[in-house]
Amino acid sequence: MGGVEALFEPSSVAVVGASRRPGKLGRVILEQLRSSFRGRVFPVNPKADSVAGLRSYPSVSSIPERVDLAVIAVPAEACPGVVEDCGAAGVEVAIVISGGFSEVGRRDLEQELVSRARRWGLRIVGPNCMGVYRPSSGLDTLFTPSDLLPRPGPGRVAILTQSGSFGGAVMAWLAAERVGLSAFVSYGNRADVDEADLLEYLAGDPETGAIAIYLEGARDGRRLASAISEVSPEKPVVVFKAGRTSSGSRAVLSHTGSLAGSDAAYEAAFKQSGAIRAMSTQQFLDFSRTLAVQGPSRGPRVGVITNGGGYGVAAVDALVERGMTVPEPGPSLRERLRSLLPPYYPVGNPQDLTGSSTADQYGAAMRAFAESGEVDGLMVIALFSVPLLDPSRTADYVLEVRREFDIPLVVVSLEVNEGAARAIESMEEGGVPVFPSPERAADALFALVRYGEVRRRAEVTRWRP
Amino acid sequence: MGGVEALFEPSSVAVVGASRRPGKLGRVILEQLRSSFRGRVFPVNPKADSVAGLRSYPSVSSIPERVDLAVIAVPAEACPGVVEDCGAAGVEVAIVISGGFSEVGRRDLEQELVSRARRWGLRIVGPNCMGVYRPSSGLDTLFTPSDLLPRPGPGRVAILTQSGSFGGAVMAWLAAERVGLSAFVSYGNRADVDEADLLEYLAGDPETGAIAIYLEGARDGRRLASAISEVSPEKPVVVFKAGRTSSGSRAVLSHTGSLAGSDAAYEAAFKQSGAIRAMSTQQFLDFSRTLAVQGPSRGPRVGVITNGGGYGVAAVDALVERGMTVPEPGPSLRERLRSLLPPYYPVGNPQDLTGSSTADQYGAAMRAFAESGEVDGLMVIALFSVPLLDPSRTADYVLEVRREFDIPLVVVSLEVNEGAARAIESMEEGGVPVFPSPERAADALFALVRYGEVRRRAEVTRWRP
Repeated sequence: MGGVEALFEPSSVAVVGASRRPGKLGRVILEQLRSSFRGRVFPVNPKADSVAGLRSYPSVSSIPERVDLAVIAVPAEACPGVVEDCGAAGVEVAIVISGGFSEVGRRDLEQELVSRARRWGLRIVGPNCMGVYRPSSGLDTLFTPSDLLPRPGPGRVAILTQSGSFGGAVMAWLAAERVGLSAFVSYGNRADVDEADLLEYLAGDPETGAIAIYLEGARDGRRLASAISEVSPEKPVVVFKAGRTSSGSRAVLSHTGSLAGSDAAYEAAFKQSGAIRAMSTQQFLDFSRTLAVQGPSRGPRVGVITNGGGYGVAAVDALVERGMTVPEPGPSLRERLRSLLPPYYPVGNPQDLTGSSTADQYGAAMRAFAESGEVDGLMVIALFSVPLLDPSRTADYVLEVRREFDIPLVVVSLEVNEGAARAIESMEEGGVPVFPSPERAADALFALVRYGEVRRRAEVTRWRP
Repeated sequence: MGGVEALFEPSSVAVVGASRRPGKLGRVILEQLRSSFRGRVFPVNPKADSVAGLRSYPSVSSIPERVDLAVIAVPAEACPGVVEDCGAAGVEVAIVISGGFSEVGRRDLEQELVSRARRWGLRIVGPNCMGVYRPSSGLDTLFTPSDLLPRPGPGRVAILTQSGSFGGAVMAWLAAERVGLSAFVSYGNRADVDEADLLEYLAGDPETGAIAIYLEGARDGRRLASAISEVSPEKPVVVFKAGRTSSGSRAVLSHTGSLAGSDAAYEAAFKQSGAIRAMSTQQFLDFSRTLAVQGPSRGPRVGVITNGGGYGVAAVDALVERGMTVPEPGPSLRERLRSLLPPYYPVGNPQDLTGSSTADQYGAAMRAFAESGEVDGLMVIALFSVPLLDPSRTADYVLEVRREFDIPLVVVSLEVNEGAARAIESMEEGGVPVFPSPERAADALFALVRYGEVRRRAEVTRWRP
């Protein structure tokens, strides 16, 4: 069996079922690919000489050039024949977009797809899926046009999803929060290519910083756990497991026909394999976007710098409730803060810079905490509604500390005005995630702390005298 | 002692310390009031004849008209004298914006303020606070200009906050999410007017639908609990208590000098008094905005209608984890759904309308669930990235069901395109909160279910044979 490189890095793509009628699935996919993909695109349609201005072919095997990836959007009954043709033509991966397989009781037809493909060493993604989106090359087989579903730009998060609609929602959300993607794969019924295959590829993909998986049920739990165990010491793997409750498992069964399985068993497998488990959609996104741009935390001690006392207290509660600590500064850090800040400022952790805060004070306090060795990460709360705090200079200091010190750093801020919005954008572009609430920032730090534990455990396990 | 009506409904306001220098606190407040407040505004400044184009007076008592509310922004040492003058002039409420009292160890000066005020029956808000914002009348004493801190428009949520910066952050957030306010009060050191006084007024305020309190520590726990017990059967009270953890209480002490107290004691008091406790900033906002526009739920049974299977499963998990249920439809509801929906649709709860969903199908399914009597509330997940689903008509059906049936109804949707954004706005304007994630929508329903329990318990307690 071949690998799945061609799913992520094809030079040429054939779209089988590229209809002459605008609006049909295959046609939408063809147009999307033609406008965004950097490689070659071939429509396949036996009833047309050209589709959407491109020369069309009656079959994949009649295309005179090499085809790496085929996208199949024809009725289910016709799919096995097309797969056979793809195999004969030397295609490496075929994405079967079409539905009408095991999800409606036609497990036989799905099995037929796979057995035909295996004969040729062809790998199948799907059926009943949306396929792949790879922003860096413009590869985009999603049948929802981008005016209906906005696409995130290039970035470091890879999303793997059993549910196409969940994936679509997550993409729209990422786009709205300006978080970039390295790859998105919706694999639907997962007849052949599964999470383990995709993880194996993404582990070596230089564009991917973190891998996030939406899972309803594993086809082969051991295989998945083993794949996660392989990847997690190298790259963080975030998992959102739907169907945690018994009513949820019932919903999973009627949704994808998967068995959601015992949640306790999944929990144990995730812990053991080093997956970082998200318990909400929001955590799924916040964990992933943070792990994609920052390294693991060396420990649970967090320094909190704030210009809002109330948000500072809420941050401390949220951190402690997630298992982190907010240690009081020791004598030398205390003295240093004392010497750097105005005499009427309190000194402590959280360090309250008050409503008189300036960018220079943020810079000084961040540096003092980072250099002290007393904390393993920083949460910087910068509310830009105060008159003396310049958003742009504050952002510069944040990015400077981020570059200079190898510790987790997340920011809490709100887009209260234009200057604040620009500062937030520049921090995010520089690899510092910005959240509107202390609790979401605490979630982000939690993911980095948890990933630090995963990494340290892997080092111990791998060490051989 | 008088009440606090004049804080919310003054006809005339004096600003003491209205400086001739732009940018000074008193000057900013004066300009804000002059541009937004519908009543009369008088600058008080003994060193000027006019400030910002308004005739200025040397003292409050020299103003020839009646003054209901005074806003004081002069150095702390000068405040007791000004309070005396306000008392003599018959002012009903004075907001002392100035800091420099108990928060810096000058409890004596703060006590002096209060004892002078009490002699005249004058009530004091603050000191060390931001004061009041009342969108419906344009009353706005916040010293942060609106270009630095956006203000929400008029609405049904009242916010009471010990921390000005927390309040400011929440306001900016509400403004960004287009949630309206009935009133905002930052009362800082709480030397005189406290939550109980404010709750008493807001209980009878027709503009206020729900009251949200940010609390670090109560001055008098029994008094607060008793005030909440009085209000909660009439209007929902949401509380976010900062300083839940021991590190958090330490931070509270250094922030406002309050004793955060035992969290278990607060938890018990909130339960007993019928407060609905938020455990995160996000919940504080989501609980409040939902309770402000929808009535209590009669029970925990929720119907979920979705066009995304994955989001549907996540919704079920989130609801069940929060103590709600997602019951399977009984025979007659099942039959009704069967007859209303295309034959190839699955039928159940969650009701998956699939990627082929239309607005009419949403309308039919919502009505079938609402009329069945089998559920106490609805979560409607409408992802507008599918080609056949018209956002505007879907929103119309949602609002129709909302008007016609007296059950909680919240929506999950994303602003994936212009049409979706407009539909979301119209649903929110019609009293249906819209959230990007199933978990936040489940939080919103949780608040309505919890408030239903509070109401039913109050009925039992009040019933006398």
